[in-house]
Amino acid sequence: MRIVTMTTDFGTQDWFVGVMKGVIMSLSPQAVCIDLTHDIPPGNVRAAAFALASSYSYFPSGTVHLAVVDPGVGTDRPAMAVATDRYLFVGPDNGVLSLALKRETVRACHRLENPAFFREPVSATFHGRDVFAPTAAHLTRGVLLEEMGPAHPDPVQIDWPKPVFGLDRVTGATVYCDRFGNFVTNLPGEEIMARGGKPRVKVARRDLVLVTSFQGVAEGEPLAYIGSTGLVEIAVNGGSARQVLKLKLDQPVEVTW
Amino acid sequence: MRIVTMTTDFGTQDWFVGVMKGVIMSLSPQAVCIDLTHDIPPGNVRAAAFALASSYSYFPSGTVHLAVVDPGVGTDRPAMAVATDRYLFVGPDNGVLSLALKRETVRACHRLENPAFFREPVSATFHGRDVFAPTAAHLTRGVLLEEMGPAHPDPVQIDWPKPVFGLDRVTGATVYCDRFGNFVTNLPGEEIMARGGKPRVKVARRDLVLVTSFQGVAEGEPLAYIGSTGLVEIAVNGGSARQVLKLKLDQPVEVTW
Amino acid sequence: MRIVTMTTDFGTQDWFVGVMKGVIMSLSPQAVCIDLTHDIPPGNVRAAAFALASSYSYFPSGTVHLAVVDPGVGTDRPAMAVATDRYLFVGPDNGVLSLALKRETVRACHRLENPAFFREPVSATFHGRDVFAPTAAHLTRGVLLEEMGPAHPDPVQIDWPKPVFGLDRVTGATVYCDRFGNFVTNLPGEEIMARGGKPRVKVARRDLVLVTSFQGVAEGEPLAYIGSTGLVEIAVNGGSARQVLKLKLDQPVEVTW
Repeated sequence: MRIVTMTTDFGTQDWFVGVMKGVIMSLSPQAVCIDLTHDIPPGNVRAAAFALASSYSYFPSGTVHLAVVDPGVGTDRPAMAVATDRYLFVGPDNGVLSLALKRETVRACHRLENPAFFREPVSATFHGRDVFAPTAAHLTRGVLLEEMGPAHPDPVQIDWPKPVFGLDRVTGATVYCDRFGNFVTNLPGEEIMARGGKPRVKVARRDLVLVTSFQGVAEGEPLAYIGSTGLVEIAVNGGSARQVLKLKLDQPVEVTW
Repeated sequence: MRIVTMTTDFGTQDWFVGVMKGVIMSLSPQAVCIDLTHDIPPGNVRAAAFALASSYSYFPSGTVHLAVVDPGVGTDRPAMAVATDRYLFVGPDNGVLSLALKRETVRACHRLENPAFFREPVSATFHGRDVFAPTAAHLTRGVLLEEMGPAHPDPVQIDWPKPVFGLDRVTGATVYCDRFGNFVTNLPGEEIMARGGKPRVKVARRDLVLVTSFQGVAEGEPLAYIGSTGLVEIAVNGGSARQVLKLKLDQPVEVTW
Repeated sequence: MRIVTMTTDFGTQDWFVGVMKGVIMSLSPQAVCIDLTHDIPPGNVRAAAFALASSYSYFPSGTVHLAVVDPGVGTDRPAMAVATDRYLFVGPDNGVLSLALKRETVRACHRLENPAFFREPVSATFHGRDVFAPTAAHLTRGVLLEEMGPAHPDPVQIDWPKPVFGLDRVTGATVYCDRFGNFVTNLPGEEIMARGGKPRVKVARRDLVLVTSFQGVAEGEPLAYIGSTGLVEIAVNGGSARQVLKLKLDQPVEVTW
């Protein structure tokens, strides 16, 4: 048994994801395909990179993580497979893997150029089916990266905002909005709490206490807390920060004491 | 092989469900995770309880049923695991398991308090990942409820409307609206049919014959029938009762003869 | 291990699909259920037939393909199971299987009439659970079609528009719109390219060059290309042809040279 996780923007209304699973299971009957999400907004490499980085490490070592958000499909952007200490990653070289790889020790990164591991003929628009799914399947069976194509030394890094640590403040931004309308920021909770005191979070002209749980916050009230990814999040208890606070992505957030 | 079913309000656009599966499969590589639904309206414990009660019994005995609709996460509401004659259930003690448990013979109910079975550190907001998923995984491997925490004798019962049986009528209410816009009521079909005669269903100022199938009902016409859960349902043939009849949840429904 | 693919219009907000999987795994513990899609528009047999025909062949031989888009459930439309050279198919006889079967060599087609293979009592509205899921499960275990009911010689063919090949043009229509707002037509790419020259595609008063990839097409510009199913598709680069071109299903499309 070898797990293949799947992160795509293919949605679930069509057959695209099902076909990828068919290709994987045809080549690797013992593979178990697990959906991370297929509802990444079309072409949103950043959201996919964040979703993958927030979830890949919860899987057993040896898992193959497949991410296909690929607005450049059919152009000459490389396709690649990456081996880290614990996992294998497959996807286009457009940054979709980069946030996860930054947290891993990369052992090898190779371009996918050997057609022996593709489904032929390779279509111009569905490399998920013709390139990435077969590659993931072959990886679960122990095919080596070296066989798949030449080394690919410098994969694309996604543009990701870094928090700025000042003497009396930390400034960052909202980076992701989840299904509940909660906004995740790029502000690392542990480092902020380590400064002690009573941190306050300023966002959208609100000044919020940084709390540790929703308990004690009145229904409908906004709050800032350290979310399950370890980052500061902005929410509305029993509501949606997107709707109530009209928050947007890339909105400035500041922690002060 | 041991099945873990999952019922949540986490949606499928983020990575939350995928991460729970990763946690489960890391601890219990033979587990097979089956989605019941993740599209319960956020925080709607009643809808989740009804979905679980309508589906759990179709699974093989030994299945672990995991339900995480948990608006009280991070407060002191207990988490629990329950063993019945045939199944194991895991979830917050907020009533989400109660409609299913009412139909089962409960053998044991224990609070989840032993951190040995949690994923540490336990976050304040994602007990699905840190408490419930690991518990479900450990249950598939045969860990006993007794090891997980103290007995928890009186789990919360959800507030669920009971039909009222009169001499010449049965009164109830709509309790669930499905994807087709059909409304399920709390009126038990078998008991109503057992009274014989020609039952009529009054709802939203309509007076409908209780039929046994959609056959013979004109396209666009409303009908009342006994649905697949055994309860009376209100639908519009080829349409949506929500849209056409403007039905709502908790709307009174009356059966007369 | 035996794969059961599932194509339905049951959506994912309710428990219908989960229950079908429970029924399948109860009868056939080694079965692996793979979702093709459950978001077929309610009752849209044509969309389901196209989704299935576009995906079934990517699965290992021996796969059981289950399709339940069944507006006639509860009427006397037959239910059937079909064996082809490579696959087994199960569904209502309303055309939902017909586009896939047209590409296969059919070995046997039988009506599902033997209640020994149903889940009793069979409900009037959920044959997915009571008839089709158990049938699929029994097929994975080697039950023969002959045991399930009498031969069913002439299953319903779906009404599917055929392209018309003229001397200097090929005329067809849009037949499917995917999650990205791309429209698939019924125009076969290979046959059109085989005529050589520079084919142009006329649709919605646009005159588009038939290209082989999105590369070189400006963001926001419409294009015609040969999609991953081998058919001509109409898209807008980085956008939605549904929104930008206001395309609809059954809209005429013409290829000229």
